[in-house]
Amino acid sequence: MIVKKKIAVVLSGNGVYDGAEIHEAVLTMLAIACNGAEYQIFAPDIQQFHVINHLTGEEMGEKRNVLVESARIARGNAQPLSELDMNDYDALIFPGGFGAAKNLSSYAYKGDGFTVNTEVENVIKSAYKAGKPIGALCIAPVILPKVLGEVMVTIGNDPATIASIQIMNGKHVETAHGEIVIDKTHRLVTTPCYMLDATIDQIAKGADNLVKAVLAMV
Amino acid sequence: MIVKKKIAVVLSGNGVYDGAEIHEAVLTMLAIACNGAEYQIFAPDIQQFHVINHLTGEEMGEKRNVLVESARIARGNAQPLSELDMNDYDALIFPGGFGAAKNLSSYAYKGDGFTVNTEVENVIKSAYKAGKPIGALCIAPVILPKVLGEVMVTIGNDPATIASIQIMNGKHVETAHGEIVIDKTHRLVTTPCYMLDATIDQIAKGADNLVKAVLAMV
Repeated sequence: MIVKKKIAVVLSGNGVYDGAEIHEAVLTMLAIACNGAEYQIFAPDIQQFHVINHLTGEEMGEKRNVLVESARIARGNAQPLSELDMNDYDALIFPGGFGAAKNLSSYAYKGDGFTVNTEVENVIKSAYKAGKPIGALCIAPVILPKVLGEVMVTIGNDPATIASIQIMNGKHVETAHGEIVIDKTHRLVTTPCYMLDATIDQIAKGADNLVKAVLAMV
Repeated sequence: MIVKKKIAVVLSGNGVYDGAEIHEAVLTMLAIACNGAEYQIFAPDIQQFHVINHLTGEEMGEKRNVLVESARIARGNAQPLSELDMNDYDALIFPGGFGAAKNLSSYAYKGDGFTVNTEVENVIKSAYKAGKPIGALCIAPVILPKVLGEVMVTIGNDPATIASIQIMNGKHVETAHGEIVIDKTHRLVTTPCYMLDATIDQIAKGADNLVKAVLAMV
């Protein structure tokens, strides 16, 4: 019997403007399954920074919970991030969406002085210390230099975000659709996805390339 | 310049238990893009039947709008179903999820005596009369015999749903993972997806097979 490699996927809600980018989340899960591995969804059990009406772009007068909304993408099978023990997993992946910059961290509204959710910081440090690879898509890579320091990532080609990464002593490499950047020293894989003006098939390609590179490092 | 075939995709919210099944929706969109066509998301501008906490399975004391929630899957680019003119599209596809049986129709809580949302009924009749193919995934095929009568569909192998289809004079064909049923006479393509205990890569296969068959009939 073949034991499948297990990847912890951390979501930040359910919807690009206030949570996890749904295509990136689903296509990461698909890439993991198609490459012969398994995933488990995790999310912090916290209130979303805010709730955006995705039709109008306006803020709604509602409260939603990051774990409860992430469970929609997971078809119910989501666990609190506080229960993620990296001893049980071979790798860690963060899909993107504004949720990574609003719920997992405060980058979207604090800019360079942003902080990272403590549970998110803990699992990144835990994976890193254990030599387990970490993948991040879209805007999520901005969290990595904040937690790990002088690492190499990509978020595509957005000048403001690149500047933020450099201020944290991170090294940024510009990328196009579907491309990945591998930091072999720190065992990180990143890809721009919807940080570029991409189509859904380009997202699938980026997620698949990222997952393949992550699994190759396990 | 090649003019791409255009498919109208009708969503029923955002989450398997009270809306569109997210994997089926995203993987239908991916299959359309990967097969060289284009999609536009539509949804009825109505209140959801209810809101389910996808972590616990319990009903939440909230109101959500089907179009607004569907827009999360569409990254904002969703249009009211009332504005869908089948003259502008080559085909029509309904991903599944309980939303098809709770918001697009009342099958989940009315059983055999269920009704179909008027806008949904109108676009199905409009596509059918124009000879434009219709695809439906998961539980969504149950709507087709209600609107069109003696048609052939699949929802997998669930005995209760098969009985409901037969009561409407529909013909049901049992299917396994990724398989599709094509009703050439009525230009319908259906596939079971999560009506079976499926994995995400099996959903991708079913959606791709369905989209290929739909496009072949355009």
